[in-house]
Amino acid sequence: MELYSYFRSSAAYRVRIALCLKGLDYRIVPVHLLRHGGEQLGDDYRRRNPEGLVPALDEDGRILTQSLAIMEYLDETHGPATLLPADAPGRARVRALALHVACDIHPLNNLRVLRWLAHELKVEPSARDDWYRHWVELGFRSLEAQLQSPATGRCCHGDAPGLADCCLVPQVYNARRYDVDLSAFPTIERIAAHCESLPAFQAARPDAQPDAE
Amino acid sequence: MELYSYFRSSAAYRVRIALCLKGLDYRIVPVHLLRHGGEQLGDDYRRRNPEGLVPALDEDGRILTQSLAIMEYLDETHGPATLLPADAPGRARVRALALHVACDIHPLNNLRVLRWLAHELKVEPSARDDWYRHWVELGFRSLEAQLQSPATGRCCHGDAPGLADCCLVPQVYNARRYDVDLSAFPTIERIAAHCESLPAFQAARPDAQPDAE
Repeated sequence: MELYSYFRSSAAYRVRIALCLKGLDYRIVPVHLLRHGGEQLGDDYRRRNPEGLVPALDEDGRILTQSLAIMEYLDETHGPATLLPADAPGRARVRALALHVACDIHPLNNLRVLRWLAHELKVEPSARDDWYRHWVELGFRSLEAQLQSPATGRCCHGDAPGLADCCLVPQVYNARRYDVDLSAFPTIERIAAHCESLPAFQAARPDAQPDAE
Repeated sequence: MELYSYFRSSAAYRVRIALCLKGLDYRIVPVHLLRHGGEQLGDDYRRRNPEGLVPALDEDGRILTQSLAIMEYLDETHGPATLLPADAPGRARVRALALHVACDIHPLNNLRVLRWLAHELKVEPSARDDWYRHWVELGFRSLEAQLQSPATGRCCHGDAPGLADCCLVPQVYNARRYDVDLSAFPTIERIAAHCESLPAFQAARPDAQPDAE
């Protein structure tokens, strides 16, 4: 399997964690989001993924896109399923936590969005940083509230890492880069710290990637 | 089942379609996103959904959030499963199409985001409309490319409506409200028109809701 990835991309980071958690062999194909006007927008990459976003997974010529869809696919096809709980209400909870990050926090803080704010809307750097922090803090506040549940363990759902943790840890990494004060979100901080101590999460870290700078 | 819904919310609209496609009985509990400073942000609703977003589904006191997680749950627990294909690659494709809308188009055009642009960043109405159309057109362009596949039928995947169509139709409804020219996306237009002719999609329409204005 080949993962088209950029070391700092949150969405690629999610899939790297999932691949490592499942112990699957894969090779990184770096797609540099900043060089050459963005390699993800070049014809070569867009033949694989017309959306021009990383990640994409190539499994024997089958191209999969969208990090959450890729992770569900890996869990369904490379058993045993470990990224999602066995019960439907548990799966709904884990998916909701993952989607909370993937739909309501991360899309607003993507590189392409921050660029549009700067270049098209001429938003000052300080207001752009406020924008970043606003959506992360708003999202983390409600995520922290949702994690106040007996279903939360050392990880987002019980003690074993799953789909929600694959999304949470990259978002926390991202938030730290923008100096978001995480002390207001003790459960998120605790879960991230625990996950980051695990070998799979360490192998997936941005600074452990072949294209890290 | 009770669905906390706002007639114009794209995410609530998705779940209404899924409920209707599966022929499930449900009651709408309206949450007005504009009145009283946004009923979704009130304590009463946030006890149900700390994120303060619609929809939320209450099934016998169990509260489910995040439209895609709710739809997957409904498909898993109220058989037969019809929203996702039986094969893993098919499921990955349908989920990717759905996530394309839910992660890469809709979050940028949400009410709360458009408001932040207007009130905090003092973006002019015309630049805000450009923002809206930019992300929809960018997303639709790549979605249109991804739909150029033998897997596409009268609907996004084959001839029967599923998870991707539940996401696409509300996004098309939304785009029309903002005068996005859809003629550049003939496959999207064709699929939306077909789906909109089906009774389940008609029952879920914003203007068919009890809280429609």
